[in-house]
This record gives sequence, structure tokens and C-alpha cells, in this order.
Amino acid sequence: MESQEPKVVTGGSTLMPLNYSSNRVMLKTILEGREEDGEIGFVGHKVVIGGWVKSSKEVKKESQPSPPPQPAAADAIPSSPGPKDVSCVEIIQSRIPFFRTIIRVLGGSASSPAVREKLESLIPKPPPSSTFFLQINDGSCVSNLQVVIDSAVTPVPAGQILPTGTCILAQGVLEKPSAQGKQTTIELKVEKILHVGTVEQDKYPLSRKRLPLDSLRDYSHIRPRTTTVASVTRIRSALDFATHTFFQKHGFLHVQVPIITTTDSEGFSERFQVTTLLGKPSKKEETIGVTDADAVSLETVKAAIKEKSSLVEQLKRSDSNREALVAALQDLRKTNELAKQLEAREKSKPKTAVKPDVVNFNEDLFGRQTYLTVSGRLHLESYACALGHVYSFGPRFRADKTVCPKHVAEMWTVEVEMAFSELEDAMNCAEDSFKFLCRWVLDNCSEDMKFVSKRIDRNLTHRLEYLITSSYEKISYREAVEILRKVTDKAFETQLQWGVPLTAEHLSYLADEHYKRPIIIRDYPKAVKPFYVRLNDDGITVAAFEMVIPKIGTVIKGSQNEERIDMLNTRIKEFDLSKDDYEWYMDLRRHGTVKHSGFSLEFDLIVLLATGLTDVRDAIPFPRSHGKANN
Amino acid sequence: MESQEPKVVTGGSTLMPLNYSSNRVMLKTILEGREEDGEIGFVGHKVVIGGWVKSSKEVKKESQPSPPPQPAAADAIPSSPGPKDVSCVEIIQSRIPFFRTIIRVLGGSASSPAVREKLESLIPKPPPSSTFFLQINDGSCVSNLQVVIDSAVTPVPAGQILPTGTCILAQGVLEKPSAQGKQTTIELKVEKILHVGTVEQDKYPLSRKRLPLDSLRDYSHIRPRTTTVASVTRIRSALDFATHTFFQKHGFLHVQVPIITTTDSEGFSERFQVTTLLGKPSKKEETIGVTDADAVSLETVKAAIKEKSSLVEQLKRSDSNREALVAALQDLRKTNELAKQLEAREKSKPKTAVKPDVVNFNEDLFGRQTYLTVSGRLHLESYACALGHVYSFGPRFRADKTVCPKHVAEMWTVEVEMAFSELEDAMNCAEDSFKFLCRWVLDNCSEDMKFVSKRIDRNLTHRLEYLITSSYEKISYREAVEILRKVTDKAFETQLQWGVPLTAEHLSYLADEHYKRPIIIRDYPKAVKPFYVRLNDDGITVAAFEMVIPKIGTVIKGSQNEERIDMLNTRIKEFDLSKDDYEWYMDLRRHGTVKHSGFSLEFDLIVLLATGLTDVRDAIPFPRSHGKANN
Repeated sequence: MESQEPKVVTGGSTLMPLNYSSNRVMLKTILEGREEDGEIGFVGHKVVIGGWVKSSKEVKKESQPSPPPQPAAADAIPSSPGPKDVSCVEIIQSRIPFFRTIIRVLGGSASSPAVREKLESLIPKPPPSSTFFLQINDGSCVSNLQVVIDSAVTPVPAGQILPTGTCILAQGVLEKPSAQGKQTTIELKVEKILHVGTVEQDKYPLSRKRLPLDSLRDYSHIRPRTTTVASVTRIRSALDFATHTFFQKHGFLHVQVPIITTTDSEGFSERFQVTTLLGKPSKKEETIGVTDADAVSLETVKAAIKEKSSLVEQLKRSDSNREALVAALQDLRKTNELAKQLEAREKSKPKTAVKPDVVNFNEDLFGRQTYLTVSGRLHLESYACALGHVYSFGPRFRADKTVCPKHVAEMWTVEVEMAFSELEDAMNCAEDSFKFLCRWVLDNCSEDMKFVSKRIDRNLTHRLEYLITSSYEKISYREAVEILRKVTDKAFETQLQWGVPLTAEHLSYLADEHYKRPIIIRDYPKAVKPFYVRLNDDGITVAAFEMVIPKIGTVIKGSQNEERIDMLNTRIKEFDLSKDDYEWYMDLRRHGTVKHSGFSLEFDLIVLLATGLTDVRDAIPFPRSHGKANN
Repeated sequence: MESQEPKVVTGGSTLMPLNYSSNRVMLKTILEGREEDGEIGFVGHKVVIGGWVKSSKEVKKESQPSPPPQPAAADAIPSSPGPKDVSCVEIIQSRIPFFRTIIRVLGGSASSPAVREKLESLIPKPPPSSTFFLQINDGSCVSNLQVVIDSAVTPVPAGQILPTGTCILAQGVLEKPSAQGKQTTIELKVEKILHVGTVEQDKYPLSRKRLPLDSLRDYSHIRPRTTTVASVTRIRSALDFATHTFFQKHGFLHVQVPIITTTDSEGFSERFQVTTLLGKPSKKEETIGVTDADAVSLETVKAAIKEKSSLVEQLKRSDSNREALVAALQDLRKTNELAKQLEAREKSKPKTAVKPDVVNFNEDLFGRQTYLTVSGRLHLESYACALGHVYSFGPRFRADKTVCPKHVAEMWTVEVEMAFSELEDAMNCAEDSFKFLCRWVLDNCSEDMKFVSKRIDRNLTHRLEYLITSSYEKISYREAVEILRKVTDKAFETQLQWGVPLTAEHLSYLADEHYKRPIIIRDYPKAVKPFYVRLNDDGITVAAFEMVIPKIGTVIKGSQNEERIDMLNTRIKEFDLSKDDYEWYMDLRRHGTVKHSGFSLEFDLIVLLATGLTDVRDAIPFPRSHGKANN
């Protein structure tokens, strides 16, 4: 359906429509509007709103006007049997002309009135007048707006307006809700529907029931429509702005370090290569003559099988609905067949792009091997050694095959570098910036924090308050090892001795069990930290630190970097690195060297911390991990 | 030299030291401090400052106390013959014990007093007491602070403290300058030098003379120390924060779209592949037995040759200094030899990493071919179709071999997507955000704007004011073509007829010559815009626009995107794209589709516009272009 040009319909100066959006008023503006003497100030205002249906209810006019509509619950994807039923009615309605034809034909030939009567009884009666109660959300806030539509007003049948996920743009008047016993304080009485974007219910992944977060990962393009992922997105965006605000406020300049690099800035991680040498795959692939198989990907089908299997199991257990079980089994069988076809097609796909006998990197676009950056700190140093305090905020990459809830292949990282500064300075800046981010979400995202606290982790706000106000324990690596070696009631997987890296298990013991608060561990053995970290006077440890937060692990890694050229030379040799690659970096020591320090903050882990989530794949819009890059 | 722990030395509450920086006070704080009754308020304050020497002068104490030091000119790299001379003195000084030994030996054997006298005269006298006047910059502002050091205070010889590029951390008292006729209003009388980072003058690329911007590109790691690149960096950082401020202020959420993608979001550009299939090059390479060749890269040597050749030419022309010419020629010859050796080594390098017979992308980390993103708009749509107004700000990539001053392989782009919005909305938002950015630099970067206006483009401020206040001409592609076809006084390289893309030449004529102001061109032929742009009712044009700024060209490209699934299907077929790849994108139309529009803003071009620069390689910290990725 085409939307019509909406008129300006704001009722007063306080209810400003959103810019660049067809005079639409954000629901946040309406729902979080000022209350006056216990009443919402916007009652009586005429507005345009838009959003997607989260849940709905049809109330027949003949029947009692109030079985009250579902409360504006902040459910991600509530189960909605209502729309499901309505959609069956709808299908029959759409067949009415066809039924009538049959009856006319049969009625003409069959003279018996009994037959005609029987046939007439098969035709559904035209739908009675109804009121639709929709819970609409536009992504601006957690709460939904209750939108009341008289069936006379809708330009489309009920079955097209009620399903979860339907998009609505409507004009109406804000009213106090008429029905009793509801949680909503304001609703929109629709005068005109300007646009309806329908849903293909059988294909819509969010239509059936509330999916767990790990299932939602298969629908990264659709999941922001769930209340949880929407909340996480808003918190993430707020944290993003908070990051820039903190550093700009403290006199840091933002420097965009390169993503494509020839320098290995870290030395410990597998890197992705960037190239133009591998050819394109052939665009047209053999079709196997299966229409369905053209429309969907194997991944989607596999996810559907998982879902459908669990439905079958559920139905088997409930025992109440034999027909539904048969239907579900048939559906599952069909989907399994589709998966087989797709798998066959996958195998027949040409796997090769080019067959190069020799990969000559001189012919690559940059004339040499280039990689996706693992860390921008070395590049950032070159700006720190000219401009003082600098930071960078961007994506960093590790070609890691292990699947881990705290790390994926592409993660956003804040990197900081400060000239004229030492290890203590970096530790202080790390702690301050971290506390600032925690404070920011509490101050600026109260509604979302309330929601994620309720849905994900009830202790969230309390924990953040604690992180902001507590002082962080500072210990050396040596002390950490001593504490861990004394542990007798717990067997660690990795046996600990001085010199080995601390594992997540060790860190968790220290922060969660021993100190029960954030800790900063400093002065690591030189072999476990990158070559550029400054050698301490003892000759065996380096000026590195890690900030470890209970339940999350290491969120910040920092160091004072080696400013002495002879020492840096030695370290490069010790690490067996190609000296040529670091000539540019050595220049910063050759010419006007200065003590400097900095750190990397794993932004995605801060989002976990602020939302209570436990897996970064739920916090990153389109996560990339081993075998997973689908759009 | 090691820095010592500095004491807190701020004189008052208004002169706050920078956080996390050894109690150092930013020069900006001192130099842009409030003036009281025409006097700088900070005279008498004790502070620590740090920075790099931009220029210097040594004044012997026996001589007149004022030949005034060089004014705190904002020169990028002033020519500094002073340090050069001093450095020769320094070399001889360091040889004094050696000379004395020779003289002793010779004096012992040679009985003639004449010989001894002659030999004694060869020994330089110990340096007389001097005052050093250094112009120091710490990157916080354009201006330098004049730092006055008595030679008795320095822990290192003059030759190590005077060269351009030397790093100094010093403690002292702010004073009114004593010498007459100078432009500085305040200077630092040094009491204690806490750190000196010396310069290897013969290798320091910025020591000799002011290098043009294109030569500086070879030293992307050192060039932020020039006043011009420092100013550009500060303006760029301000524009970066302004971008986030504008969109957050207008209710947009920041969404980090993926860099690694399987989706071709544009269809017109060559893409980089991301892979883990190509092996690592062998780390150890054959050495040719040339020590020098190990220490430097071919690139650096070639740059040195260029520089040394120009010095030889200069000396040839001047004719005054025969010896210097001979030395320079010898130096050049030596460097040429080194370059040859390096070239030979480059050729003997193993060019191959792996010899794969078959590249099997199933074995790649993601199990399929993946690319660096060209545009994030399609991914952004998925968030817009749930959350309303969203934006993304990150790096985008094109594997383009053509060298062009407006485009390199890696550029930062702002992308915007808005649900419930049409083409006009996107055009308005594009214009507003653009004007906001222009306003921001004028309001927040006045000192830097003054500098780049003076150094790069005198009309800069005036032009920005004009861009903020003028209304932008909106024309259709059809009108643009009609105007261009009527042009008789100019022959365009590409002959124009309806349907062909407009080239930079055409756009420049329209904006610079015909309208003489920014223009927005809309409704392009469907074949010249991506498949996802919404088809207009005429069936031949699409709802796309470009914002063209005089002297810069297209800075923003936008469109209303196709929300009708059948139409989108047709367009995907017309473009001969693989339907499978876009299934996830089609889902956004299958389920709750909505009208939406957005745009991409080339951030690097905005930096050009704001600074008067003409080549993005001077505006991007580490530019990546064909054959150029050196760190």
C-alpha cells in the first residue's frame, strides 16, 4: 500500500515531530512526555506515528467492549495466538468470491433447497465490525504505544494489520485509554492509516514465539526488532557517544588509524590478508530446478529445522493437539527435504575462483602483502609523538578459529596513546574512562537499563554502581601468581608458574573469588607481552597492565611503550621480527623520542558489561566469527 | 636521557595541568589563556611543559643579548641553519679528547713551538656560555611557546637540544619576554630540563626545509609534526565529533555495520577480498651482506635520493660552496649505490607465499568468499527498519587502481538510513548535516582555521560561511543534461546524452561555473544507480540524489530505497545479481516493509573542504592507494 502525504498534525509546541520523517512523532516523545498533575500532557494532540506491531488483539464490536487488550508489555516477541486465528479467517474471506461462484454453479444445477442451504452454511459471514488494539514500537524506546483502530478505518483486511512485525504509519488523536485495569496511560485513536507493510507470517522468524538470543543470531538482519536487541542497540549507541565525549573532553584528538596495514602491531594473533589477487566466483550457478531452493539459504533452512523440530517435540509432549502435530511433522519433513536439496546444490557449486600457480604479491593492489589491522596502537603512537593525547575508535580483526563468547573476528576497540606519560598515567586514564562509560549508561539510558536489568540480569544496576564507586586493586603479575599458586580448593586447567600467561580461569578466580572487585595486574613477564612494551629495570618484566572486571574478564590492556631505541632494537631481535617492517616505527625513537603510554579498551565487552549479556555475538550488530559471515 | 619525576608546579587554579601527562600543562592552556588588562594572566606561574622543537636560536652571552629570537611563527618546518652550524661545533667538541691526544703525541715529538702553536689553534675553545631560545609545540595548538634555556641548565650539549624535532620536557616559570620587538607575549624561563629526546639530524626528514605536502606523504608517520598536518588533524578530529553530535542530537542511533561482508552493497566498485588462505611469506630473507641495506627501506632511500639530488642542484646553482658540492655529490653517489643494492634484494625476495592448485573457499575462515565493505547502507537498512533513524561512521573500501585526488582505497564514510522517510527527507538531512559540520569548524577551530586559511586557501572562511547561508539549487538529472548540452564554449571529454553518468568535469561545470553554488541533482537514470534505489513512477529514473559542492565535487550521495518487494526483485534481475546473496535484504521487504531513505557522506572530502586541501592523501592520517601501503 502506498503511503499518502501526511499533514502536519502536532497538537502543540512541545510535541515536536522527528525531523526528516514524514512529520512522524517518535513514540519516546509521546510515552516519556511530561506528566502534569498525574495526567499525560499530550492527550488531545493530533499526531502521526509509525512503527512495527509487537502484539495485537481484535475485539468484536458485538461482544463485550472490554476484554482489555494486552498490556503494553515490553516483551521481545510475545506469543500471539490472536493474529494466527485472524489470519485463517482472512484466508477464507479472500476465497469468498470463489465460494460464491461454486455455490451459484451448484445451486443452479441442484434443485434441492436442502443442498443449497447446506452450501450456504459453508460460506463464512462477512466479518463483523471490530476494534483492533495494536502494541506499536518504533525503536525509540522500550515501551510500546497502544494504537486503537476501528475496522472501518483500515484500508486492508484485519489479517494484514494484526500480525506481529507489520509496519504501520497512522494518523490519529492521543487519548486517555477507555478500558479499565490497564497499564497504559495514553493511546492513539487512529483516524487514518497512511501505510501498511505486511508480513509473510509463515516466513517471519519472529512471528511464532520468543526466540532465545542464540537462535536470534541466525537472523541478525531481523533481530533489532526484538525488544532486547533494540535496547542493547540503544545502550551501545549511547556508549559509543560517551566514548567520544570522554576523550574529546580530556583534550584527546581522534585519529583514524588505517584498517589495511603491512605492520603486525601485536605479534600474537592470526591476521586476515587483504588481496585483489583471488578472482571472482562465477556468478551464475547451476540450478537444480528447485524453486524453493532458489529463495532461501541452507543456513536459514537449517535454523528452521531446529525450530520446527522443537515445535514437534513440544506438541508431542502436550498430547492435546493431534492435528497440529501431524501438520508440524509434515512441515518438518518438507523442510528436511529442502535442506537435502540445498546441500546437494552446495556441493555441486564451483569451489574455486582462480587456479594461480604462483601468488605474486607484487601484482596485488598495494604491491605487497597487506593485512587487516589487529591493533592501531603503533600507528597511533606516531600521532601521539607529535600531538600529545590521541585516541582511535574503530574495528580491529583477528582470524581466530576458536569460538569464544568474549571474542569474534571483528570487534570495535578504543585505543589511546599519550605522549609524556608513564604506566601509572595509562592505568589512571583507563580506570577513569571505564568508570565514565559505566556512569553514562546509568545517567542516560535509564529506561533501557531498567529493561535489561529485568530481562537479563537483575543485579546489573547495582553492579555498575559498584564498579563506579569502588577502588580497583592494583597488583603485580608476581603477586597474582603467588596468590594463585596458594589456591588449594580449585584445580586450574593450566598449571601456573612464573612466566606463563594468565588464563581467563585465573583472572576469574582473582577478580570474582579472591578480591571480589576489579583488579589491575601490572608488570608482566616480557615474553607474554608485545615487543614494544617498555622493559622494566629488573630486565625480566615489562610495563604492561590488564584491567580485569568480575564476570567479564580483561576489558582493557595497556602499557608504557619502549621509548629507548637500543632497547627496542633488542626486543625486535628477541621476537625474531623483520626489522624492515618496523623502520617507520623506529623513526619515532630516532627523532625526538618521548616516554609514552596507552591502552586498548574492548568496546564490545563494555556493551556486555552494561547490558548483562554474556556473549558478544548478541552485542555486535552483525557478528563475524569462524564460519559465520552471512550478509 | 631519562626524565625525572616532575613535581606539581601549577601556579594557580586556572592553569590546570593536562590529566595523565606528568603534570604537563598543554601549551594551548598557556597561549590561549585569558588576558587581563592587556597582560597574560599566567606570568609568574611555575609549570611543566613538553613538546618538540620547531625552530631554535643560540645567543652567546658575550655578544649582544638581543638579536631577538625568531618569532613564534607558525611555520611548518622553517629552515634552520642555526642548528646545523651548532651541530658541527658539537661534533668537533665531542672529538676534543682525541685532538688533545694527537697534539700531545705530536707536540712531544715536534720540538718546534711553531708547530705546537699551529696545532693548539686547531683545538676549538670550550663553548662559551649561551642562551638557547626554542620555539616549542606540543600539538595542542598552532602557536609555539618560546622556551628560554641557559646553557648552564642543560644536561646535554647544545647540539642535542637545538635541532628541529628534538623533544623537550622542562620545568620553569612563565615570564614576560625580555627582548624587544617580538611577537610573543609570554615565554618560559627554564629552571630544569626533565627530558631530552634527540634527533638524528641526517636522517630526520623534516630537519632540512619546508617540504611540500606531496613529499610529506612519504613520511606519514612523521608528518603530524608539521604545523599544517597538525592543524588538519585537529580540524578532522573536531569534524569527527561534530558528526556524532549532529546525529545523536537528532535522535539517530549509531550502528557499527560490518567491515567484512559477503554482500555487494553497491555493485559498481572493485572489492578487496579478505582471506586466510594465502600463506605467510618466509620471515627470514637472504641478506646480501650490506649492513646499510638492512637498516632502511627502498622507499626511504628513494626519497633521500630525491632530496639529495635537489640539494646538489641548489649547490650547483649557488656556485659559492665548492666543497659542500663535492660532499653532496659523494653523498648522493653513495645513496644511489644503496638504492641499487636494495632493488637487487627486492628482486631476489621470494614473491610467492603459497602455490595453491585450487583455492577452496570452503576452507577459508568464514567458509566462503568475503570482502571489505564498499558501503554499509544495506546493513544499516536492517536497523532502520526496526529502530527508525540510524547512522554509521566507519571505513569503507574500494580496490581502485586509478589514482585520484578525491578517492583512495580506504576512506571514512558517514552513512545514514531513516525509516518512514522519502527522497526529500534524505536531501534535507544531507544538507542540514553538511551545514552543521561547516558551522562547527568555524565555531570550534578558529585558530586552526586562521592558520589553514593563511597557509592553504585565503578564501576558506568566506567560502564556508557562504556554504552555510546559501540555499542549494535542486535540479533533476534531466535538467542537468539539458544545461550541459547547451554548453558551446567548452568541450567535455565525455560526450553527454541522457542516460550516461555525469563526470567530475560535468559536475564542476554545473556547480563552479553555471550555478556558482552547491547543487543537488536528483532523479538519475536507473542504470547509473545501484539496484536498491527506488524506481520513480516514470519507470526510467530512480529516486537518487547527489550533492555537489563547488571546487570539491560530490560529497554526498543519497537515495530513497525500493521498499516494494516485486520491484526490488525485478531490479535484482535487471542487474544480473545473484538473488541468493540478497535474500536477507529481501526479508526487510517481506516483513513489515516501509518507505525509507538515506545517504553516504564522504567524510574525507569534508575535511578537504574545511581545510582548503585538494588531495585526500593529505587529509587522511595513513592513506592507502594503489601501490601505497607502507606501514
